[in-house]
Amino acid sequence: MHDRLYENSLLYVEVEPSQVPWVKIFVKKPTRELSSCDTQTKAMLYETLDKIERQMIGFFKPTKINIASFGNYKPQVHFHIMARFKTDDFYPEPMWGTKQRSGELNLTNLDEFYDKLQKYLTSDV
Amino acid sequence: MHDRLYENSLLYVEVEPSQVPWVKIFVKKPTRELSSCDTQTKAMLYETLDKIERQMIGFFKPTKINIASFGNYKPQVHFHIMARFKTDDFYPEPMWGTKQRSGELNLTNLDEFYDKLQKYLTSDV
Repeated sequence: MHDRLYENSLLYVEVEPSQVPWVKIFVKKPTRELSSCDTQTKAMLYETLDKIERQMIGFFKPTKINIASFGNYKPQVHFHIMARFKTDDFYPEPMWGTKQRSGELNLTNLDEFYDKLQKYLTSDV
Repeated sequence: MHDRLYENSLLYVEVEPSQVPWVKIFVKKPTRELSSCDTQTKAMLYETLDKIERQMIGFFKPTKINIASFGNYKPQVHFHIMARFKTDDFYPEPMWGTKQRSGELNLTNLDEFYDKLQKYLTSDV
């Protein structure tokens, strides 16, 4: 139900199913690398990244926000934004790193957050 | 000799010793999360990221550029920019992921690139 949280003319935002709060921002125009995006798209991307990060921090008070843009499997410009916690399975390693523990973090308010984020992005505050 | 490639009043750029071209941009003002950076710092960070990405693409014609900002070990805003190649040890996994092969990529022009990048950033084109 939360697959696509938001979209506008330049980008869309999707939920990545995970133990941690994790969303992805995809640029709509076919673009392989960030520096090839037009100025308007880059500005919208950074603005959306900023909005999502602030919402994650405000809602979860996470240990750290993690941001990444790889695209090795899917070469279309997109950013991952994750809220990380000391007790999540991979912390302090990146979510792509070596697992450190198992099942200590059990967030029960992920859906509530995605609902809130969806409303916030849609209201275009 | 290439440890710190460049600095201005807001940020500095360092080389990360690696098999792949890899530099890091650190914000100077003590700041834990990207969204807490002031507008001027964010603009300079994005501009520098863009410049470095373009230089990496122009020089190496890599398979993909990878960008990441974690800070779990060092909670000060910084971005990693890496040029990735099909034959590097981790491709298509992130550089923090599972090793896929060993020693197939041997770039002999890393120092030449860092020299060029240093000159480019310093000339403030």
